[in-house]
Amino acid sequence: MEKILALLKSRGVSKQDIIECVYFLQKQYHDSLTSEKIIYYVDSVLNKREVKNAIYTGIALDVAVEKKILDNKELEAIISNDDGLYGVDEVLAYGICNLYGSIALTNFGYIDKMKPGIIGKLNRAEHTSACHTFLDDIVGAIAAAAASKLAHDKE
Amino acid sequence: MEKILALLKSRGVSKQDIIECVYFLQKQYHDSLTSEKIIYYVDSVLNKREVKNAIYTGIALDVAVEKKILDNKELEAIISNDDGLYGVDEVLAYGICNLYGSIALTNFGYIDKMKPGIIGKLNRAEHTSACHTFLDDIVGAIAAAAASKLAHDKE
Amino acid sequence: MEKILALLKSRGVSKQDIIECVYFLQKQYHDSLTSEKIIYYVDSVLNKREVKNAIYTGIALDVAVEKKILDNKELEAIISNDDGLYGVDEVLAYGICNLYGSIALTNFGYIDKMKPGIIGKLNRAEHTSACHTFLDDIVGAIAAAAASKLAHDKE
Amino acid sequence: MEKILALLKSRGVSKQDIIECVYFLQKQYHDSLTSEKIIYYVDSVLNKREVKNAIYTGIALDVAVEKKILDNKELEAIISNDDGLYGVDEVLAYGICNLYGSIALTNFGYIDKMKPGIIGKLNRAEHTSACHTFLDDIVGAIAAAAASKLAHDKE
Repeated sequence: MEKILALLKSRGVSKQDIIECVYFLQKQYHDSLTSEKIIYYVDSVLNKREVKNAIYTGIALDVAVEKKILDNKELEAIISNDDGLYGVDEVLAYGICNLYGSIALTNFGYIDKMKPGIIGKLNRAEHTSACHTFLDDIVGAIAAAAASKLAHDKE
Repeated sequence: MEKILALLKSRGVSKQDIIECVYFLQKQYHDSLTSEKIIYYVDSVLNKREVKNAIYTGIALDVAVEKKILDNKELEAIISNDDGLYGVDEVLAYGICNLYGSIALTNFGYIDKMKPGIIGKLNRAEHTSACHTFLDDIVGAIAAAAASKLAHDKE
Repeated sequence: MEKILALLKSRGVSKQDIIECVYFLQKQYHDSLTSEKIIYYVDSVLNKREVKNAIYTGIALDVAVEKKILDNKELEAIISNDDGLYGVDEVLAYGICNLYGSIALTNFGYIDKMKPGIIGKLNRAEHTSACHTFLDDIVGAIAAAAASKLAHDKE
Repeated sequence: MEKILALLKSRGVSKQDIIECVYFLQKQYHDSLTSEKIIYYVDSVLNKREVKNAIYTGIALDVAVEKKILDNKELEAIISNDDGLYGVDEVLAYGICNLYGSIALTNFGYIDKMKPGIIGKLNRAEHTSACHTFLDDIVGAIAAAAASKLAHDKE
């Protein structure tokens, strides 16, 4: 898991950033929700093979667009501008959420609109130099998945 | 489509209620968004066979729970209480949203948390007499689907 | 889990039937694949809350259709005839498969067309007396999910 | 649509190849199923924005892996070898199928295992020179989607 955390860090996302997103989603349902408790669920999500592959693939696309190395320049422009109707970034995010059930999907839809913390920051980043089209959805999906697992375990 | 509208009406949901949910989701992206325009998209969603089947099935379950005619009394209690971790109501809703792409799913997650208009009303209804566990998600899904189609057509 | 196994048994499906479906999906990838090994994965799938809820709900619909107690007689006829375009039975099945990743979905599509063992038997059952429209897809989804988990653990 | 057909052609897939995959999926349900009839449905699928974006993105990843230009060399190896547990290629394919309902998903699972025509050819291609990890699933998804739309229209 160190590798995936290092990759996220290199793209501007710390584990603490993800923890804060989970806290945003779950705080109202818990009297005392600590970072220590949330970490367990974030780690669990990040350790899953299909989650890792989705993260690697999404970030690879973001980086390729930043470096302008894709053959398809029209696609590069669509991803670079984070076109609201592109949709493939959300498809990858749902590939993560689906593994954690229907509550994870609902959580994702909510956090994707509210854009708390790091998600808003990635979304507002200057599109000319950096591309986080996949990353902001991936972070939302990781948080939504961890929050769903936390909710299921609570009961 | 008259039949499906009559069924929704008999369960407390008018076409105008759904239009208001679509408006809630789309107002910020349009300068002038009229009911007339939204109606076209709501009708289009309600006319789709798989959407109709999901509506019929979800409402049939709500009604069966109200009438207490299911064999499985434990399941009846779970649905009657709208247990947050039940999940099958959202699965049916996603069956509708998926037909309209990833934006519909995101819209659904958002509206399901915000519970505007009729969705909040259904959700707050007295659980001892009425059961709207499937219906509130179905209405959210119809609105999310119509809003997604509207967004795609706008461009 | 005893309760869910008893319910499946009462509808004509034994644990051994499910094991054979998993074997059908995985035999070509393993030199020696025993029932003992497969049982672990079937149990694991059947113990998951969202899986249980999908099973309970699908069977409740099958039983309600058999007993002819649904208000909506048109829906009752569609489910009773296992109309190929109904689709809600598969939506419920995907609610199970999605939890086990994309390989589970592919496995489901394959087993749903091939209809080995108990799935074919349920599918061919006399529609006038029994209704297994949801059950055959649910059994396929359980087997597809268990096979997917087995494949992921093998590596 | 000429652009997407040209792109597919440049990767070894003709419209006729896709038509044959649809025929494979639907022949048993029709007395007389002609290429002319199938073309309408293939065109309709290929004209959908979200389908186009999934095709563009999947092929961009295949090409980037062939050219060895991705930063993440581990991911490059996983995609290049078409690792059965990678899963993101299927996630993209489901992003297409979901738009066409649950029957499209079942069709995809079946065709992905049977690998008729072009799908088998892409799958057997020498992995050292060409990468079709995303393309074979994308072609399967286009065919599954077109077959599902054809089945719905038939009734």
